[in-house]
Amino acid sequence: YSHGSEELKETYLPRFLTGEWFGTMCLTEAHSGTDLGLIRTSAKPVGDSYNLNGQKIFISCGEHDMSENIIHLVLARLPDAPKGVKGISLFIVPKFLVNDDGTLGARNKVKCVSIEEKMGVHGSATCVMSFENAEGYLVGEPHDGLAAMFSMMNTERIAVGLQGLGQSEIAYQNGLAYAKDRIQGRDLKEPRNPDGEADPLIVHPDVRRMLMRSKSLIDAGRMLACWTALAIDKSEKDPDEKVRKETGDLVELMTPIVKALLTDYGVEITYDMLQVHGGHGYIREYGMEQFSRDVRIASIWEGTNGIQALDLAGRKMPQHMGRLLRRFFHPALDFIEQNKEDADMKEFVVPFSKALKGLQKTTLYMAQKGLGNPYEIGAAATDYLRQFGLVAMGYMWLLMLKVAFSKREKNDYYEHKIILARFFFERILPETLSRAITISSGSKTMMSLPDDGFNSNSQFSGVV
Amino acid sequence: YSHGSEELKETYLPRFLTGEWFGTMCLTEAHSGTDLGLIRTSAKPVGDSYNLNGQKIFISCGEHDMSENIIHLVLARLPDAPKGVKGISLFIVPKFLVNDDGTLGARNKVKCVSIEEKMGVHGSATCVMSFENAEGYLVGEPHDGLAAMFSMMNTERIAVGLQGLGQSEIAYQNGLAYAKDRIQGRDLKEPRNPDGEADPLIVHPDVRRMLMRSKSLIDAGRMLACWTALAIDKSEKDPDEKVRKETGDLVELMTPIVKALLTDYGVEITYDMLQVHGGHGYIREYGMEQFSRDVRIASIWEGTNGIQALDLAGRKMPQHMGRLLRRFFHPALDFIEQNKEDADMKEFVVPFSKALKGLQKTTLYMAQKGLGNPYEIGAAATDYLRQFGLVAMGYMWLLMLKVAFSKREKNDYYEHKIILARFFFERILPETLSRAITISSGSKTMMSLPDDGFNSNSQFSGVV
Repeated sequence: YSHGSEELKETYLPRFLTGEWFGTMCLTEAHSGTDLGLIRTSAKPVGDSYNLNGQKIFISCGEHDMSENIIHLVLARLPDAPKGVKGISLFIVPKFLVNDDGTLGARNKVKCVSIEEKMGVHGSATCVMSFENAEGYLVGEPHDGLAAMFSMMNTERIAVGLQGLGQSEIAYQNGLAYAKDRIQGRDLKEPRNPDGEADPLIVHPDVRRMLMRSKSLIDAGRMLACWTALAIDKSEKDPDEKVRKETGDLVELMTPIVKALLTDYGVEITYDMLQVHGGHGYIREYGMEQFSRDVRIASIWEGTNGIQALDLAGRKMPQHMGRLLRRFFHPALDFIEQNKEDADMKEFVVPFSKALKGLQKTTLYMAQKGLGNPYEIGAAATDYLRQFGLVAMGYMWLLMLKVAFSKREKNDYYEHKIILARFFFERILPETLSRAITISSGSKTMMSLPDDGFNSNSQFSGVV
Repeated sequence: YSHGSEELKETYLPRFLTGEWFGTMCLTEAHSGTDLGLIRTSAKPVGDSYNLNGQKIFISCGEHDMSENIIHLVLARLPDAPKGVKGISLFIVPKFLVNDDGTLGARNKVKCVSIEEKMGVHGSATCVMSFENAEGYLVGEPHDGLAAMFSMMNTERIAVGLQGLGQSEIAYQNGLAYAKDRIQGRDLKEPRNPDGEADPLIVHPDVRRMLMRSKSLIDAGRMLACWTALAIDKSEKDPDEKVRKETGDLVELMTPIVKALLTDYGVEITYDMLQVHGGHGYIREYGMEQFSRDVRIASIWEGTNGIQALDLAGRKMPQHMGRLLRRFFHPALDFIEQNKEDADMKEFVVPFSKALKGLQKTTLYMAQKGLGNPYEIGAAATDYLRQFGLVAMGYMWLLMLKVAFSKREKNDYYEHKIILARFFFERILPETLSRAITISSGSKTMMSLPDDGFNSNSQFSGVV
């Protein structure tokens, strides 16, 4: 849509929109995942089109018969391509060639040669795709394929964050239903179900802890996703150029956070909600174990969460002298200024303000240390993303609290939101403290262990 | 062994030891897991033996043909049994009845009526066992079955901790091998494999972070398990009664920590080591996804980790006016006193001392609050177990460091240990801080959310 020629757009886009045709993203090769500079699939010009040769792996929905045609977006190298990521071009390779009148023609020379056995997401066939003189069409400029692909990848990353959020929600709904239904043990103070043999699980503090932790993270995560999605819309459609630019900066900043934070929490929440089920959570018929297996891919695909953290700390943080960062820090600081005297909000603004200061301090520390030593950024990245993500969730809770306090008389719903917010500020946000301390220890220890120092004790059996 | 009659011991124990016969533990029923007071399986006296009737679920290795006989240890109620946990007795129910001469007789009336489909541990058949007038023999005193069963259960809990540790180790070995073998991306400073297309994963700080975190937790976990196992031996065999009693107290205190901490970390480490594999970790042939599925049961069986936390905070902590606690705190405080001036050790003793003080403070807080309000214990338990576990691991590292410093000249192995210890104290132990803050927020917020406040937003769609 952003990079293709008019002809390609006319041929392919309408039937994508109607759902008649499906697509894939063909990036990874067996030896080249995170490091796309290594890809070897080649594209040779033949008349107006190209002949593609090579093999791609981990191609979701690479082959199926749910649609009339499958349109592969493929990264490959032209004969004159420079080495590395600057020599990658993007091609369209349809499963069936498309005739001039739009009807389907011959089968193209791209085929699925293997389907992976995976931990989960069994609804999607993960294919090894082989291209043997497959006909393809260049999208955008030669050697500019990675940028073109990443127009899509960045939206995908938000979508994967939503995958984590969706899995969290369904796991939570199941955990909650079980906690209300299953009776086991008694309330620590007095029976809550005196006519029954036992009380429902939800009376137990540790079960409530798991449920409330999940829900307060889900609510903040949903708000974060909506807030970012609103910024995407504004960055594309707002009439004011300044707003478009600023919201665009915010989207760039938040993309790795939405992706990694919501998928990490997807795993944690699914873990806790399975735990609420006890032994029944481990049994297939309750469905919780499937959620656990399915959600696990979300921390990996569309760039592992470690890569997201590096994107945030190594790229987005320093970009344009911190211009992206200001799109988060400025409104958050303004909010504190405007609400610090508010009697209702004070309880929440005070710890948030502390956590935000902590994040500013960490950011400054990394900016200074990172200049002289790139290892510092790599060593801090994952903890920094979590710290940033928690502060961002704190800000989301503040925005929600403003609404909740203004409507609390109307409905218990808002009163409950305030309690959930309190749980977040009391029991979840403090994690930012230990993350900040961890980051401040730097990269020295981490980089000082020689490779053979990682070996298992068993490999030293002669010594001890 | 501890509770059975001489005749039962002579009949059954020898062939357990030779491995000719296997055993099971039949506790759980469909409506009764954590809350064993609810069990309904009945035992009616018939001559010298008993007729058992009822159904048990989640029975590992309940039926198989790997051994000549299977000896079920079954919890059931006698006709005159009081309600709840004080009315449970323990029985032996063999799959094949045993003749007086020790040969196998008729098939007993216990059978497997279903096998569960599980997330993992597929090597073990998890059975629903049905008892229909099955012949059984009382072990120990009537109504004293739970205590008898828990002689075994407590050892089992240590064993499950070791399961978590073992899964961590195999996951780590796989993660390390992959990180050394797989080349992807370049070192942030300079190529480490200049003749190759890329550098091995292990050059990247975030990968090193995952590996070193895993290894420093595994080493401390292994030490913790050995230290506890040594205490078990002493509690049984030491000639000095005082030592037997004190080490017995230590074992009781550490059992829930070993179980829950090492299985929680089993899940976390397996997660990180799968993550090192990227997309390949999600594919069955690399084996990492199986480790993830297998390790997940360890946080659940032999008492969920939430139950372990309650055992620690609600039972072991206050027991005998804190007598059990002293078996950890006294030697740890003595160690600090003896090593605080040691030039090598100081770097580690100082943060440990701080963390230990934090744990003492939390313990005191809970002891005081818990007296008036049992919810406080329930609300704090899981965070308390983690805080305690991390401090215990810190102590284990101190013990290892003493040895490492004394031998560092001899072999790099000891030098590497010191670096791993540094990683633990710099980057893992600080988590105790945020756990302490979380605990100090108490139970009020958690208990103030009414049951319908847990409902999903979708259930309020009319409101927002």
